[in-house]
Amino acid sequence: MSGYRYRAISFLSDFGLVDEFVGVCHGVILRIAPDVRVIDICHGIRPQNIGEGATVLAQAVPYMPTGVHLAVVDPGVGSSRLPIAVQAADGSWLVGPDNGLLMPAAARLGGATACRKIENPALTSVNPSRTFHGRDIFAPAAAHLALGVDPGELGDELTVGGLVTLKAPVPRLHDGHFHAAVTHVDRYGNLCTNIAASPAAEAGMCVGMLLDVGLEGHRCVAPYGETFASVAPGEPVVTEDSHGLLALCVNQGNAAERFGASLGSKVLIGPAISGGR
Amino acid sequence: MSGYRYRAISFLSDFGLVDEFVGVCHGVILRIAPDVRVIDICHGIRPQNIGEGATVLAQAVPYMPTGVHLAVVDPGVGSSRLPIAVQAADGSWLVGPDNGLLMPAAARLGGATACRKIENPALTSVNPSRTFHGRDIFAPAAAHLALGVDPGELGDELTVGGLVTLKAPVPRLHDGHFHAAVTHVDRYGNLCTNIAASPAAEAGMCVGMLLDVGLEGHRCVAPYGETFASVAPGEPVVTEDSHGLLALCVNQGNAAERFGASLGSKVLIGPAISGGR
Amino acid sequence: MSGYRYRAISFLSDFGLVDEFVGVCHGVILRIAPDVRVIDICHGIRPQNIGEGATVLAQAVPYMPTGVHLAVVDPGVGSSRLPIAVQAADGSWLVGPDNGLLMPAAARLGGATACRKIENPALTSVNPSRTFHGRDIFAPAAAHLALGVDPGELGDELTVGGLVTLKAPVPRLHDGHFHAAVTHVDRYGNLCTNIAASPAAEAGMCVGMLLDVGLEGHRCVAPYGETFASVAPGEPVVTEDSHGLLALCVNQGNAAERFGASLGSKVLIGPAISGGR
Repeated sequence: MSGYRYRAISFLSDFGLVDEFVGVCHGVILRIAPDVRVIDICHGIRPQNIGEGATVLAQAVPYMPTGVHLAVVDPGVGSSRLPIAVQAADGSWLVGPDNGLLMPAAARLGGATACRKIENPALTSVNPSRTFHGRDIFAPAAAHLALGVDPGELGDELTVGGLVTLKAPVPRLHDGHFHAAVTHVDRYGNLCTNIAASPAAEAGMCVGMLLDVGLEGHRCVAPYGETFASVAPGEPVVTEDSHGLLALCVNQGNAAERFGASLGSKVLIGPAISGGR
Repeated sequence: MSGYRYRAISFLSDFGLVDEFVGVCHGVILRIAPDVRVIDICHGIRPQNIGEGATVLAQAVPYMPTGVHLAVVDPGVGSSRLPIAVQAADGSWLVGPDNGLLMPAAARLGGATACRKIENPALTSVNPSRTFHGRDIFAPAAAHLALGVDPGELGDELTVGGLVTLKAPVPRLHDGHFHAAVTHVDRYGNLCTNIAASPAAEAGMCVGMLLDVGLEGHRCVAPYGETFASVAPGEPVVTEDSHGLLALCVNQGNAAERFGASLGSKVLIGPAISGGR
Repeated sequence: MSGYRYRAISFLSDFGLVDEFVGVCHGVILRIAPDVRVIDICHGIRPQNIGEGATVLAQAVPYMPTGVHLAVVDPGVGSSRLPIAVQAADGSWLVGPDNGLLMPAAARLGGATACRKIENPALTSVNPSRTFHGRDIFAPAAAHLALGVDPGELGDELTVGGLVTLKAPVPRLHDGHFHAAVTHVDRYGNLCTNIAASPAAEAGMCVGMLLDVGLEGHRCVAPYGETFASVAPGEPVVTEDSHGLLALCVNQGNAAERFGASLGSKVLIGPAISGGR
């Protein structure tokens, strides 16, 4: 490992695990940097869903070793969108397309401090395909960065302020209730919202209270619990998820199925006021 | 690797691979113990199905390097159930929740010889979430055990006899037939039962015989074959699976679909007696 | 790593990732060769689909480190089909069943130069099961090959010319149109065909042209584009995929769903001639 700048490359994509896309990127990386560790953050981002990819990447990078974070959710592959490497304040590099995917993660790591366009054919595939830049451009660039190549060799410097950014949906507080969105549905059917626990606390919601929840035509009262098991099996509960966001869950059940909700569903959460509203 | 007690951590959960849960646990482990190898046993345990997780873990650990076996199927996360580390007679440590998940694996490795509660905040996350102990408690504890920390530093000793155990369903032999259950359905639709091949042999069933099989309202006669290809494609066959248990399969087909059976289905298997019953 | 012949074992199968089959093979390999890297090419090959496995393996191996390529799609497990290790001209070894799975990959690596039957019980499991040779025969043999065991110790030499080969479907050119097949459907629903871009060019099809596409009762005109984004979101496009084959895609959409097509669907592609045909 002597000479390596980083020991680990973490890797997120919308490639799924049914095809060989992820495995081929691993192979490309290990042919260049045989001693680097590749950590698969996840590859289950919904196809081409840049926003979901950006959210999951930003939530995951603080738990990854400082190193290279490779991320590919890339509906514009082969078009004029640029392949980039962004340095974050913690010393990590984020590698992927300039479509907004990397920026929330860079912010989570202290902010983007520099950016290079990836255009040096000596550090990518000689004849890159037009449809699989993960294999032909991003994975090789990530491997060379881990090995210790001078980032300046990747290509021209780009202004951080000129990179593409996403508009993240922000919950709106009205009449004591948050009008928010389901921003992630996990394997268990937990409905994660974009309401952070601290503004919820400022708006008067705390653990132990009953909350009024509206979602896809359903209206219910659910306790704000410390964890799933704060209610009986099969009962709904609002908890603070592991990223500090409010989530609507069903203990030992599946809230997405119960409420017919999915990614992007609008959700209303506020204190349940006795006497109704 | 000098100083590491174990080189490998094997890892089983019900996290699935669509979300970032597994990847984040890998990141947490490698930030603590950068040279350890993490082997994903599987993460496809049905959500919150402790029994299935316990069975799969127990079948898998004999094939894993001696080391730390991290397992998380944890419907009681954040409640009063304890996080534990159990030492097995082969020198391995099993890390996970005290809900019965770990005990069949400990038995398979020669029996549980010691147990520690995991409660030292220096060896876990400083502010653990209430909903993701895999990331905040179990993965860090497993990494520190692999690194070589004194297990006594994890927390108080617990009596092995006081740990939670599961009641495993036992097949009942009546009138020459086993009344058993489908305890696993694999990717191919093979229906694995809890009937071990040796008691089946004691009850007079051996390879080459015709067997009488009852399942979900179906009744059929299938040969007891050495392998799937012992019958023509599309035909049912009972085989000894790779764990020494009887399984009902369809050669190059899907027995679960054919018979409408699933995890937990009741199954009846016995010798086919000419003249009918 | 001193003494290892190869640093990496790449691994493809139809095991899926829901069960513990893949993880157990990793464990078996690392018990024998603790320092080897295992690269999962993919495990999503459709159950028992040798042809799909052979295609994906052949496309992936050029991107893998030279080493051992372990592949298991094995409907004849436990029958008379032989377990084999095939050496390719690039110095790699391919390990798996003699059912045609390995041969296209060997060809891609310069051709098969030698073959050994795997039959030495000292290099496999002592009591191999009849139903899981991945765990009991192929994974241990692959690990021993990576470690540096003399391949002659695996078992008797077999004639390369006597190995099982598959008949790959070949597209037929008639009246300016290719009569071809969908040979792969990827996660995005892209329909990959067996028409290589160079014969398509010889038949007069080039980027920028409109093509006439027939598929599952649908008939449409789609441009031959450089990439997905060559057309508006939701529009069909024929592109050269990352393996140099024509693929029918929908930009930011799912062509398989749009056209009701799947693996094996017949497809017709040719130049769109003004005035109709």
